[in-house]
Amino acid sequence: MDVGKGLLHPDRLFPADPATRTIARDLYETVRNLPIVSPHGHTEPSWFAEDKPFEDAASLLVIPDHYLFRMLHSVGVKLDDLGVPRLDGKPVASGRAIWRAFAAQYHLFRGTPSSLWVDHAMSSVLGCDEPLTPDNADKLYDHINAQLALPEFRPRALHKRFGIETIATTEGALDPLTHHQKMAAEGWIGRVRTTYRPDSVTDPDAVGFRANLLQFGEITGADVTRWDGMVDAHRKRRAYFRQFGATATDHGVPTAFTADLPLADKQALLDTALKGPLSSADAELFRGLMMTEMAGLSAEDGMVMQIHAGSRRNTDGGLFQTRGPNMGADIPTRTDWVGGLNALLSKHGHAPGLRVLLFTLDETTYARELAPMAGHWECLMIGPPWWFYDSPNGIRRYLDQVVETAGFANLAGFNDDTRALLSIPARHDVWRREVCRFLAQLAVEHRISKKDAEIVARELSYDNAKKAYKL
Amino acid sequence: MDVGKGLLHPDRLFPADPATRTIARDLYETVRNLPIVSPHGHTEPSWFAEDKPFEDAASLLVIPDHYLFRMLHSVGVKLDDLGVPRLDGKPVASGRAIWRAFAAQYHLFRGTPSSLWVDHAMSSVLGCDEPLTPDNADKLYDHINAQLALPEFRPRALHKRFGIETIATTEGALDPLTHHQKMAAEGWIGRVRTTYRPDSVTDPDAVGFRANLLQFGEITGADVTRWDGMVDAHRKRRAYFRQFGATATDHGVPTAFTADLPLADKQALLDTALKGPLSSADAELFRGLMMTEMAGLSAEDGMVMQIHAGSRRNTDGGLFQTRGPNMGADIPTRTDWVGGLNALLSKHGHAPGLRVLLFTLDETTYARELAPMAGHWECLMIGPPWWFYDSPNGIRRYLDQVVETAGFANLAGFNDDTRALLSIPARHDVWRREVCRFLAQLAVEHRISKKDAEIVARELSYDNAKKAYKL
Amino acid sequence: MDVGKGLLHPDRLFPADPATRTIARDLYETVRNLPIVSPHGHTEPSWFAEDKPFEDAASLLVIPDHYLFRMLHSVGVKLDDLGVPRLDGKPVASGRAIWRAFAAQYHLFRGTPSSLWVDHAMSSVLGCDEPLTPDNADKLYDHINAQLALPEFRPRALHKRFGIETIATTEGALDPLTHHQKMAAEGWIGRVRTTYRPDSVTDPDAVGFRANLLQFGEITGADVTRWDGMVDAHRKRRAYFRQFGATATDHGVPTAFTADLPLADKQALLDTALKGPLSSADAELFRGLMMTEMAGLSAEDGMVMQIHAGSRRNTDGGLFQTRGPNMGADIPTRTDWVGGLNALLSKHGHAPGLRVLLFTLDETTYARELAPMAGHWECLMIGPPWWFYDSPNGIRRYLDQVVETAGFANLAGFNDDTRALLSIPARHDVWRREVCRFLAQLAVEHRISKKDAEIVARELSYDNAKKAYKL
Repeated sequence: MDVGKGLLHPDRLFPADPATRTIARDLYETVRNLPIVSPHGHTEPSWFAEDKPFEDAASLLVIPDHYLFRMLHSVGVKLDDLGVPRLDGKPVASGRAIWRAFAAQYHLFRGTPSSLWVDHAMSSVLGCDEPLTPDNADKLYDHINAQLALPEFRPRALHKRFGIETIATTEGALDPLTHHQKMAAEGWIGRVRTTYRPDSVTDPDAVGFRANLLQFGEITGADVTRWDGMVDAHRKRRAYFRQFGATATDHGVPTAFTADLPLADKQALLDTALKGPLSSADAELFRGLMMTEMAGLSAEDGMVMQIHAGSRRNTDGGLFQTRGPNMGADIPTRTDWVGGLNALLSKHGHAPGLRVLLFTLDETTYARELAPMAGHWECLMIGPPWWFYDSPNGIRRYLDQVVETAGFANLAGFNDDTRALLSIPARHDVWRREVCRFLAQLAVEHRISKKDAEIVARELSYDNAKKAYKL
Repeated sequence: MDVGKGLLHPDRLFPADPATRTIARDLYETVRNLPIVSPHGHTEPSWFAEDKPFEDAASLLVIPDHYLFRMLHSVGVKLDDLGVPRLDGKPVASGRAIWRAFAAQYHLFRGTPSSLWVDHAMSSVLGCDEPLTPDNADKLYDHINAQLALPEFRPRALHKRFGIETIATTEGALDPLTHHQKMAAEGWIGRVRTTYRPDSVTDPDAVGFRANLLQFGEITGADVTRWDGMVDAHRKRRAYFRQFGATATDHGVPTAFTADLPLADKQALLDTALKGPLSSADAELFRGLMMTEMAGLSAEDGMVMQIHAGSRRNTDGGLFQTRGPNMGADIPTRTDWVGGLNALLSKHGHAPGLRVLLFTLDETTYARELAPMAGHWECLMIGPPWWFYDSPNGIRRYLDQVVETAGFANLAGFNDDTRALLSIPARHDVWRREVCRFLAQLAVEHRISKKDAEIVARELSYDNAKKAYKL
Repeated sequence: MDVGKGLLHPDRLFPADPATRTIARDLYETVRNLPIVSPHGHTEPSWFAEDKPFEDAASLLVIPDHYLFRMLHSVGVKLDDLGVPRLDGKPVASGRAIWRAFAAQYHLFRGTPSSLWVDHAMSSVLGCDEPLTPDNADKLYDHINAQLALPEFRPRALHKRFGIETIATTEGALDPLTHHQKMAAEGWIGRVRTTYRPDSVTDPDAVGFRANLLQFGEITGADVTRWDGMVDAHRKRRAYFRQFGATATDHGVPTAFTADLPLADKQALLDTALKGPLSSADAELFRGLMMTEMAGLSAEDGMVMQIHAGSRRNTDGGLFQTRGPNMGADIPTRTDWVGGLNALLSKHGHAPGLRVLLFTLDETTYARELAPMAGHWECLMIGPPWWFYDSPNGIRRYLDQVVETAGFANLAGFNDDTRALLSIPARHDVWRREVCRFLAQLAVEHRISKKDAEIVARELSYDNAKKAYKL
């Protein structure tokens, strides 16, 4: 789709120096229209399965975007006024009221990636030709809602219009994949695919862990009270997910810790876990053991293992109690990748065909740990900048720090990792522009030829993601 | 005041690219003459209270500036020769001898922020029109001393000439605030104000802690042997400080650790502390508990809480024994803000009106911890780059890493945090130039409009500091 | 030597902005032809002692360069096919086959420092005028081998042609220095010199530690079963190394930890170490104690102490078992310099004439720890960017982060630290270009005068290395 219209300057994000900008522009022309490969994210499968129109601007653009409401919260806007649901079911704002509250503070996003994404969505997707202000909030709200009612703004139409070659959603191990079943019947698997995310049955600290595990046993017909049976349950469930296009698993873990123990010790730990809450140290051990098991299964069935490590979840206890998780209070912490992955790599690091993608929230590990590790181990690749770092400056720091040691071939291209469907083209566009900017600087400093820069621009925009995820 | 004269190039610190430089220059013109708001620093209140002339160039510019003498020390210049006082009272160099020793090595500061500040002070404040060298040292020394004897170089005249709207000094809890009393009588409170820094009675490792605490009880009439009485002593003393313009407290702590315990446990710890030295772990616990109490008092009385965490003090034991603290051997360490502030935020994080400003010496926490935390919690704002990072490149790294996630509204503007009065305009000028540089780059990359860049330049130069400190 | 020919663009690595580039170019002209001072590295002394022709392109350029084979390994090239020796002695590829395997994947190094170094060596040293591709691999292989057979490509001729004023090799404490003896007899000591690296007798985790220690006693005639005797063995051996030009010692340690204990406790630890393997904690203690002893000896005999801390060695257990150490699986870890060096600095930090050079693999310590420490302690200097960070972007991050606090005088200039002889001019050239780039930016931003920039360019390219190593 054309992303150069309206609010968006065609040269945005390109470097100021005229010679470098020219190269960046030329490179960008070669990649701007490549299909979007979106191998990891959190869009709703129901959108693509049911293909219903989106409700309104607020529920599409504001409520699901924790980047937006966390910043508004930080300056004192009430989450109720932004329509963020409460666990006690009390009413919160809706529709136009949310939109007005958002517009009143939209200036807070000046200079942030959120304004890039929102402006992009409003301008090139929704055809707004002026920036959102308190004054035009109502007008734009009505305009957007009118657009959303049109057939060309239904999810499948957007999927096509955005040039999405394939997009992965993310489902828990217990998810029946109803929406994906419907899509399979309609030939939509491939365009949309699932991802196996078993945290609810691999993390003893997950809400309802024991019940989850028992349900997992029922679904799979495996004896999950035996360690080997539990691993076998995963084996079966992964196969089920693969029927719906899954080529990857995903693991959200507080640390990069992995572990390995003799089977008897693992069984003893499982026995304890089935009886009641584990100590904090035992819960970490359990997660670490499961990571190593998952790598073993990946070596066996070829599914790509994604590790998203280092988020300290729900640090605002009061907020967690009233609204639940994913409310903007997940804060990154330091991550020890070298020590953490030791057990996993010792056991499976040389397994043929194993691929593990590492995503960090600790930028100090880019050059110190991830690049040297990916530049040695055949099984390891570095995921793109994640979460807070999926931003222009975040991408600059990433490329600055990983490329010299890891090269380009050990990078997994781009993930948008978003819940916000309309931000997908914007996020890929920012990545492509930043990649071209980085390569243009290498070229103008005579560190890479323009021909090679073109090859790499394409690899990072398209090829590497497909290769990394075995698509 | 005009800061573009003499040794100083009007385009200093602006980016090389002509288009970006032009924008930076234009932005800078809109903020260069804004009043100086200096809400945190270490100037002497006696200067403004007594308004006596400064003694000489050496005692004004060299002796109080640990940035200068630490570097000279690192290449072998004796501290005695720089006039740095000894605890044993033995004589050290003075006046012209110090100045010559400084001039002999001034070339060491090439390319460092110290040379920016010293050149600025010598040029635009003191009217020197050539850079300091061994050859002109005597001439400049005489010139500066002649200037300092003039009425327009007295502290209050400089306060006015620098365009200082308000400046905060920093006093300990036991300080009688004699100088501020005099200023209050003369209507100078507001132009100068104090800050409540109770480390000597909140840190069991402080020299003379037990005696300090007992004296604190006497001053406040509170029973400091009871935990609640001790907290009440702070409550009263804070009120006293507010009479002299204090809107903020300040806390220098080795780590960001905070804690909370039942009252009985706190009392037991206080009992132990009153009997003799605490273990290292108990001292840390005591400090952590006091941080949480201080946040509670801030929620109660509205004073802004500043946390300066992460300096490992007095790492050179030999030097500490001969010359005491603040001798240049305080070295930053890693800081865990997420874990550290957990207790404080769990207890008071949602208290209405609470404001806590975080200052770090661990730049890895800018993007990983501080920006996400300030971008979520209403009570948190990020202080400007502190100490070694109050420098052009330090400011660049700071803005690069905090803005995308925290936005501009969660930044507390600028503090000069200096003991060196003459460096104040220079430090604010460096900050303003760097802010304009950053915004010019955003503008030239079409990430912010020029109009918005002007708004933000003013906010970061002036408005945000007033808002952050409730001035 | 002229390094501007062939594949290499004369402006490579210079900044894009024309004004800045002009200054960088001018500065570079003043330093490009300065002699090379190479005070730390891992070239083979036999090369200079025996002055035999190099075997072939593969054994000269590929096999000894772990930067190259680790990256190839990371994308699945078999180490056997790259001629990397196996511990079981089974055959591996050689000569032309290696070269072809390398050429087939040479594109992987696009945009990395390896391609800068290899292109530089092939172009300006070996006279290849086209970049290596699978198509020209055979032709270039033959061309290079023909060159290597010529007298002007023998090691001593290259030493002269590269403009090496002095180069230090690195030998273990037990090394008889046979090659250096031969060079001494021929008047080559000075042009080549050794460095004392006693890890095999100071690290209880070293392979064969106990046997090494006993052999060390025999060589030196000291009683190494007594702690003082062991220290005395070092004293003697260091004197022996100084006969062969050594001005420095080198210490490769996993952490920066140092320790000090009463003699009786040290003796007890040595007694335990002589009996059998130490616990992990005791081994760390032993290393830490030895670091402090080594600093004491340096204070005594004036040898410069180099500390290379923070590599987690041999993280790939499978690879270590089949091929041994230095196979590309050494990964950096976090380093605590402030806490680590506390014991050493407390004991010897003010010893006159002591010099300790610090090399880190944890870039977060540049600004947070190393620059403030070197900016205070007279004995400390910061070594240049090490290993993965000896690269254009690595050098940029280093200068960005150390200069403002440490100044230029506390930097130890450049080390190439290489096993790859032909990369020496390339590495020094990259450093000099980056230094000029950094200074050009300071100059164009009016933070340093052009005259001062010229002085500093020379200091960082030449003078500081000689001063740091007391050459």
